Amino acid sequence: MTWNILVTNDDGIYSPGLRILYDAVKDLGNIMVVAPERPRSATSLSLTLHKPLRVSRVKVGSEVFYSVSGNPSDVILIAVSKLMKSPPDIVLSGINIGDNTSLQLVLASGTVGACLQAALMNIKAVAFSMAISSMSDIVEYPKYTEITKNIIRRLTSSILEKGFPEGVDVLNVNFPPSYERGVNLKITRLAKLRFTERIVERTDPRGRKYYWIYGEEVDVAEEDTDVHTVFNEKSISITPLSLNLHPVSSKWKKDLEQIVDMVRLK
Amino acid sequence: MTWNILVTNDDGIYSPGLRILYDAVKDLGNIMVVAPERPRSATSLSLTLHKPLRVSRVKVGSEVFYSVSGNPSDVILIAVSKLMKSPPDIVLSGINIGDNTSLQLVLASGTVGACLQAALMNIKAVAFSMAISSMSDIVEYPKYTEITKNIIRRLTSSILEKGFPEGVDVLNVNFPPSYERGVNLKITRLAKLRFTERIVERTDPRGRKYYWIYGEEVDVAEEDTDVHTVFNEKSISITPLSLNLHPVSSKWKKDLEQIVDMVRLK
Repeated sequence: MTWNILVTNDDGIYSPGLRILYDAVKDLGNIMVVAPERPRSATSLSLTLHKPLRVSRVKVGSEVFYSVSGNPSDVILIAVSKLMKSPPDIVLSGINIGDNTSLQLVLASGTVGACLQAALMNIKAVAFSMAISSMSDIVEYPKYTEITKNIIRRLTSSILEKGFPEGVDVLNVNFPPSYERGVNLKITRLAKLRFTERIVERTDPRGRKYYWIYGEEVDVAEEDTDVHTVFNEKSISITPLSLNLHPVSSKWKKDLEQIVDMVRLK
Repeated sequence: MTWNILVTNDDGIYSPGLRILYDAVKDLGNIMVVAPERPRSATSLSLTLHKPLRVSRVKVGSEVFYSVSGNPSDVILIAVSKLMKSPPDIVLSGINIGDNTSLQLVLASGTVGACLQAALMNIKAVAFSMAISSMSDIVEYPKYTEITKNIIRRLTSSILEKGFPEGVDVLNVNFPPSYERGVNLKITRLAKLRFTERIVERTDPRGRKYYWIYGEEVDVAEEDTDVHTVFNEKSISITPLSLNLHPVSSKWKKDLEQIVDMVRLK
């Protein structure tokens, strides 16, 4: 069987992470690479409705990729509806520079956002992110690049052969800050927070106050979380996600019915 | 008990929807109003980390509100950490012009995004949205404004008195396109889609192709969904949301373990 694969990214068409992801899977089937023209991190699921979008053919090395003048969600929609002959069997998004662990980062991530957009269109998707701060951390070490490509290739082909796990819409894969061949893979759940958000208050040269937000790393103790797995165990974390914000238990039901009754009586 | 309430919005500090929400709840406790300087729809959970943020005191009518030069998530963080003496008992976000029904719209919504940011900080939040296309649909009809304020006031005070339903992080409230006093309130779940996303292909005056994304309304048949409730039944929809993307059943477990084993053997 020839797989139909859409490869994308939120860091833009020239991202070295996109190139590594493409190289990792290019011989697994028909690959279409479509990404935003420019980096569009943290744009989440916004579609561009107020202006037209352009699509360009872009030569990257000896390959032809496509760029879209929009967000990761626009890219998925245009790629699936206009550029591909048939919907992809899978969307692969990444490799993002910087991890996308925890609910906090996942909900703001363009890399995972592209996957959630795919899920809304009933297409399964995998997000790949690396806990590094610059792509030079990986592209300057060819052996490291090879190990990474090898793991992504094996993981993607296993997912395609076996089929997506039941009830899962997106697999969120995070690589630790460094690893060797044989690095452990672990199935995890999302931690809630990766950073405690802090604010510093400063005064500008004109004497006016301003604020700057930064994050302080949270020490996540639960061993089954993605954050602990990536940063404490230095393993690769694979987190199943489902497009669903419904409360887990139904304990809320009686409480909420009482609230609605109170409103009616007031 | 005096409630401590943070009121916010993603349409900016001068939004008439923010004003109506403030007026509805202003005598329920100590109210702090903080909103983005300018409209920031569809910015989701992005925090502003790459530049400083400014806070300004703004007189709106006879009241003092605060504006922040950032996104709805920045607003929540700065309001809670820097502007309020103690964390709010509740965050109220809205009233958004346009509904925020369905997973599709909720995941891209700034109004709900502010509530999800509050939830990450363990603060309960309620999002209010109206299925209207312009605020003049409501502010030009004082009687309509009064009915809306009355419902919001009763609902908010009931939630504060009763406490937030167990296991729920955010209540997502959507008003139908029109309603009278006595309009029905219904507890619902999120529909998946509100629009089928479509693309038209056109040619510009210079003969180059461009694309324009638009949405075609989905006819949602399931009566327990927010979309059906707001648009078919013309009732007010109240949807409990939980900050959680974990798959509902654990059927995925065996499948995913097999995939990981396959990767190890390759």
